[in-house]
Amino acid sequence: MRIGVKELSSQATAKVNPEVQAFLHDLKGKTIDHVFFVACGGSSAIMYPSKYVFDRESKAISSDLYSSNEFIQRNPIQLGEKSLVILCSQSGNTPETVKAASFAKSKGALTIAMTFKPESPLAEAAEYAVQYDWGEEALAINTNYGVLYQIVFGVLQVLENHPKFEQAIDGLDKLQAVYEQALEKEDGNARQFAEAHQKEQVIYTMASGANYGVAYSYSICILMEMQWIHSQAIHAGEYFHGPFEIIDESVPFIILLGLDETRPLEERALAFSKRYGKKLTVLDAKAYDFDGISDDVKGYLAPLVLNRVLRLYADALAEARNHPLTTRRYMWKVEY
Amino acid sequence: MRIGVKELSSQATAKVNPEVQAFLHDLKGKTIDHVFFVACGGSSAIMYPSKYVFDRESKAISSDLYSSNEFIQRNPIQLGEKSLVILCSQSGNTPETVKAASFAKSKGALTIAMTFKPESPLAEAAEYAVQYDWGEEALAINTNYGVLYQIVFGVLQVLENHPKFEQAIDGLDKLQAVYEQALEKEDGNARQFAEAHQKEQVIYTMASGANYGVAYSYSICILMEMQWIHSQAIHAGEYFHGPFEIIDESVPFIILLGLDETRPLEERALAFSKRYGKKLTVLDAKAYDFDGISDDVKGYLAPLVLNRVLRLYADALAEARNHPLTTRRYMWKVEY
Repeated sequence: MRIGVKELSSQATAKVNPEVQAFLHDLKGKTIDHVFFVACGGSSAIMYPSKYVFDRESKAISSDLYSSNEFIQRNPIQLGEKSLVILCSQSGNTPETVKAASFAKSKGALTIAMTFKPESPLAEAAEYAVQYDWGEEALAINTNYGVLYQIVFGVLQVLENHPKFEQAIDGLDKLQAVYEQALEKEDGNARQFAEAHQKEQVIYTMASGANYGVAYSYSICILMEMQWIHSQAIHAGEYFHGPFEIIDESVPFIILLGLDETRPLEERALAFSKRYGKKLTVLDAKAYDFDGISDDVKGYLAPLVLNRVLRLYADALAEARNHPLTTRRYMWKVEY
Repeated sequence: MRIGVKELSSQATAKVNPEVQAFLHDLKGKTIDHVFFVACGGSSAIMYPSKYVFDRESKAISSDLYSSNEFIQRNPIQLGEKSLVILCSQSGNTPETVKAASFAKSKGALTIAMTFKPESPLAEAAEYAVQYDWGEEALAINTNYGVLYQIVFGVLQVLENHPKFEQAIDGLDKLQAVYEQALEKEDGNARQFAEAHQKEQVIYTMASGANYGVAYSYSICILMEMQWIHSQAIHAGEYFHGPFEIIDESVPFIILLGLDETRPLEERALAFSKRYGKKLTVLDAKAYDFDGISDDVKGYLAPLVLNRVLRLYADALAEARNHPLTTRRYMWKVEY
């Protein structure tokens, strides 16, 4: 029996978070010409691939991504009744993001907040709130990345009748198996990385396109925040216009290779780094088993896998350095 | 005698680069709904304040800023006949940017290229080309930053009848005097900075809003490329969501304070850094004499002054470290 588009669509819809479904239902018939992705730190980093999706896929909706306070103070003149503002905070308690939700609402924008804590100021401040899962037990499709893509591809389907919704949801549904295979494959590499880098004081990360946010998150949240190691997420295309002068055999780089259209930038950066650097750690999404996932969305899903694998690298590094990922000296401890 | 708006406008226009004038003349009557800022490294960094201007000032034109190869590979679906693509390359010879100009033209977009070398592949590849001045003798209004603002505020005036064109051109015209006062004021501070930082292996920069690109440029072009010092340009709002855990009394930061709406972010980052850091270098645009420049554009012009002052800091650092700013190990020397 041939499965028709409509049936496929409802099969996909059944896998979508009920709160996202309710939001998408209400979205029908609304006019949105601008999406703003607004969050801080790690919650902002998960939004970079979604900006990439909008740039490549949306015919009529422009998009911007801002750290919450930058968004408020920048006060984009186009923020208004035709804007959708997507916010995220793990605790639902990030003051800048809560304020950004109220600010966006005061401008007449439609607001949807993602959080791990549905009973939180952010969930209250936004018009719609969606809970995601978090931790070792969370399935890929239900994590922050997964739920955000449900929203993003759902918005594209509802507002632009975009055809990749089914593939995206199906891909998210199959992603947990990719994670598991990738984690198994990388387990030894992660330990080796941790062993080799436990004394390093600087570790750069590098990526482009849909993967840049993953590098950014690893740099600012894992290395700087949780390990107190100097870092920067270098854009693989920008590398050749300044940053590459820093590399030599003593400087460690983590280089990500994704599956999206900017992969040639990452490959070029890797090829150069191999010639003049020595401490290179390469995570290549091609090594992971995306079988059964549509080619149309593989590039968009690769950063999620790279991010999951990098968490393994973070755990191993923390253990090797005897510096738990929960260690902080300022965050949540002092006033700021 | 009261000077009417029309007269003011032609007074301002007379100060505008003739090639920009010709472009603006041809722009009349065209429909543009998206501006793409496309360049690499330092030439990309000068465009960040212009994206800030568009976000705050343009009612109907969305904008994006991409490194040239990212732009080509990302291939934004909205790039087309209603797009204006503004490109820049000092040499006019940056392969990625030349290719980006041809790519944008092939999509039907209007292209304007800024370059120091009018007889260059980029000038040929773009529909319009504008030469800017460069070096110690160049007046602020005629530099890359100055010419870009002529284009940006000109586009806003032509397409949206935007009222700040005169103030912006008048401000650019008066900016050279601001530079000179600021450079005189900072001369001793720059030497002191250079002396104090000559042995440092890591120096962070930090800013937000219109000033972020200045921090980015100093990090990737001056510190990493020209001095082989580790660095990252930290966004002052993101600071509190990861990067601030890196600061202690041993870690140097250059913190920029501008005059735009995001200044509270920079002030907050500075206040925290003062509590836990010690090696802080603060450049505050409030210390410079913007008298006679309209309040409406001061925030947009501050990054130009900060950038000019930071060049003084770069010169002093290079001298103190006996590592000329022209030193390279890879750029222009090896294949990449």
